[in-house]
Amino acid sequence: MSQNKKIFIFDTTLRDGEQVPGCKLNASEKIELAVALENLGVDIIEAGFPVSSPGDFESVQNISKVIKNATVCGLTRAVKKDIEVAGEALKGAKRPRIHTGIGVSDLHITTKFNTTREEILNRAVEAVKYARSFVDDVEFYGEDAGRADLEFLARVVEAVINAGATVVNIPDTTGYCLPHQYGEKIAYLINNVPNVDKAILSCHCHNDLGLATANSIAGVINGARQIECTINGLGERAGNTSLEEVVMIIKQHESLGLYTDIKAEQLNPISRLVADTMRMPVQPNKAIVGSNAFAHSSGIHQDGFLKNAENYEIIRPEQVGADSSKIVLTARSGRSALAHRFQKLGYNFNRNDIDTLYQAFLQVADIKKEVGDGDLKELAAKFYPEVAIA
Amino acid sequence: MSQNKKIFIFDTTLRDGEQVPGCKLNASEKIELAVALENLGVDIIEAGFPVSSPGDFESVQNISKVIKNATVCGLTRAVKKDIEVAGEALKGAKRPRIHTGIGVSDLHITTKFNTTREEILNRAVEAVKYARSFVDDVEFYGEDAGRADLEFLARVVEAVINAGATVVNIPDTTGYCLPHQYGEKIAYLINNVPNVDKAILSCHCHNDLGLATANSIAGVINGARQIECTINGLGERAGNTSLEEVVMIIKQHESLGLYTDIKAEQLNPISRLVADTMRMPVQPNKAIVGSNAFAHSSGIHQDGFLKNAENYEIIRPEQVGADSSKIVLTARSGRSALAHRFQKLGYNFNRNDIDTLYQAFLQVADIKKEVGDGDLKELAAKFYPEVAIA
Repeated sequence: MSQNKKIFIFDTTLRDGEQVPGCKLNASEKIELAVALENLGVDIIEAGFPVSSPGDFESVQNISKVIKNATVCGLTRAVKKDIEVAGEALKGAKRPRIHTGIGVSDLHITTKFNTTREEILNRAVEAVKYARSFVDDVEFYGEDAGRADLEFLARVVEAVINAGATVVNIPDTTGYCLPHQYGEKIAYLINNVPNVDKAILSCHCHNDLGLATANSIAGVINGARQIECTINGLGERAGNTSLEEVVMIIKQHESLGLYTDIKAEQLNPISRLVADTMRMPVQPNKAIVGSNAFAHSSGIHQDGFLKNAENYEIIRPEQVGADSSKIVLTARSGRSALAHRFQKLGYNFNRNDIDTLYQAFLQVADIKKEVGDGDLKELAAKFYPEVAIA
Repeated sequence: MSQNKKIFIFDTTLRDGEQVPGCKLNASEKIELAVALENLGVDIIEAGFPVSSPGDFESVQNISKVIKNATVCGLTRAVKKDIEVAGEALKGAKRPRIHTGIGVSDLHITTKFNTTREEILNRAVEAVKYARSFVDDVEFYGEDAGRADLEFLARVVEAVINAGATVVNIPDTTGYCLPHQYGEKIAYLINNVPNVDKAILSCHCHNDLGLATANSIAGVINGARQIECTINGLGERAGNTSLEEVVMIIKQHESLGLYTDIKAEQLNPISRLVADTMRMPVQPNKAIVGSNAFAHSSGIHQDGFLKNAENYEIIRPEQVGADSSKIVLTARSGRSALAHRFQKLGYNFNRNDIDTLYQAFLQVADIKKEVGDGDLKELAAKFYPEVAIA
């Protein structure tokens, strides 16, 4: 098993994210995002699927020219033409990687390829060897590995590493695995593939059951060293693993003994850039980057938060480039939040004043839901006109 | 450990969901949602926090009168007044439950309550006993249990069960736990609390690191029998566990041997109802209920999907009341998806025709991103005017 504790972050916002219905990126927007991803500190940028269209070929070519430190990766099927075109598109890249692969579950082997395990194994090895004739860094994906026979999967992994794969991606293509199952799969490969130390195992998880983040973390706990993810969890169907979530789990759980090179304070700015550029809104209750991620509204929470932020926050918003924590005044807020807000507005009420104001506040809150500073000033003026004038 | 394999679904959309900044529900909307939740099959509806405001008191009272089968629950702190008011609000309910509790982590005990573990234990027991004087069904929450000392937590759980708690909630209040950690916590309580078989353990997880769903599932795998969740994962900060995700994981993973009474085909309709009524949008890449959850756009996926839907779908959209799977034509689509769409439009092109049309299609797709039926008809008319006229 690798002794290295660095988790490589492989961003596929521009490939698995960009192919999403509704996402619209033109050539210059793609370059803008690629540069932002490099500045964020991602290790690998999957820039596109060059054979799929002339436009995508050009994008990969342009991104290859612009990116200086990150590896630039192009997707292919285990098909000669795909690999040739990817090799061509990546020519200008400082660190080019070809990502090739084929379905390895019996379901994919029989109903998608109408072939046998042995034939799949051969095609996988041939694809990796051919890709190595274009670049030194070749990643192999075993599509639908999440539902593949484990012994066969181990044979495929061993064979592609022997053929020259530097990274082997174990995708849970349909998002079906439970975290302990995905973790056990990675552990099995680490323990049973004799040459596994010659390559890095990678987690590529989908979020169809809401488990992509947990599965990726289970993967690295069990020895994988790369996570494939997207900003805001964009991607096919319910999306991919959210970059911001796995990065912050690894950062906040020091006991895992792992790290990434991501600059966390850029997570919220890049989330907004991606959401705006790709026209893909982020829901308010999205972890780390949602507009409510650091908003406290219940009275119990507000009171505890004001006494000690750690009571209700495990991440400080500044750490991830978010606006500072919000205390939103609603009918669920308590006296301490109300007193705190009046104090911030410059009023100096005592406990009895707050008791009086609180009852009036609740009536306003039950009607208006969110109570703003203007409402509070009105209340103050009504009950304590001499103070309000001051 | 309970031999029962039913997982009770405790919905807190109207309490933990409703307190979210931006959510706006009036009295009649709350009743409408409560009825929809009962029809969905949830076992417990947390209707509000009665002491918090006169409006919330009235809501709990109204919902208590309307709901026929589900348990109606009101939240309280471990404070006499709260419990009295909740008892009053729940008077009309067929199956009333009081949900009372207090912080149990050392952080909460010292910085929020400024007290000692022993005092917290006493207050917990007194609150449960007092609540039992109003209703037979009392749930206790140990706030911030996710970061509490495990031995102390076990003592609290034992004491509140002795005091009459029927359900004990183990909240990961700040969303910090990793799935294996949360699962181990539940397993420890199941194995070390002597009277644990007298009550149900409940999972209440928050999504600050994107792990609420995985943590709840780890909880029930290890012996908890209730999950607290919300429609669309709404809730304080990054939200609560998504009801639709845990329900579908339990349903699709038969090997867990667990079940819920939720009518899955109502999941998408109720998701839209909640999103519209509460003005809280769901992102397109949300699992189960996002608008793209069943949309396939890459060529590799479309080809495999058309050969056998199971290659890329572990849930059929009809199962969860979603519109049928979408094949979206983009520059990432392949020939098989294009041929399939032309066939649906009534054209009968052969392989060579499709090759010709595909090249022209890619040029349109690189510019327009999503290619609609009108675009395809134009292409057909341009290249095969005699066919297009037919």
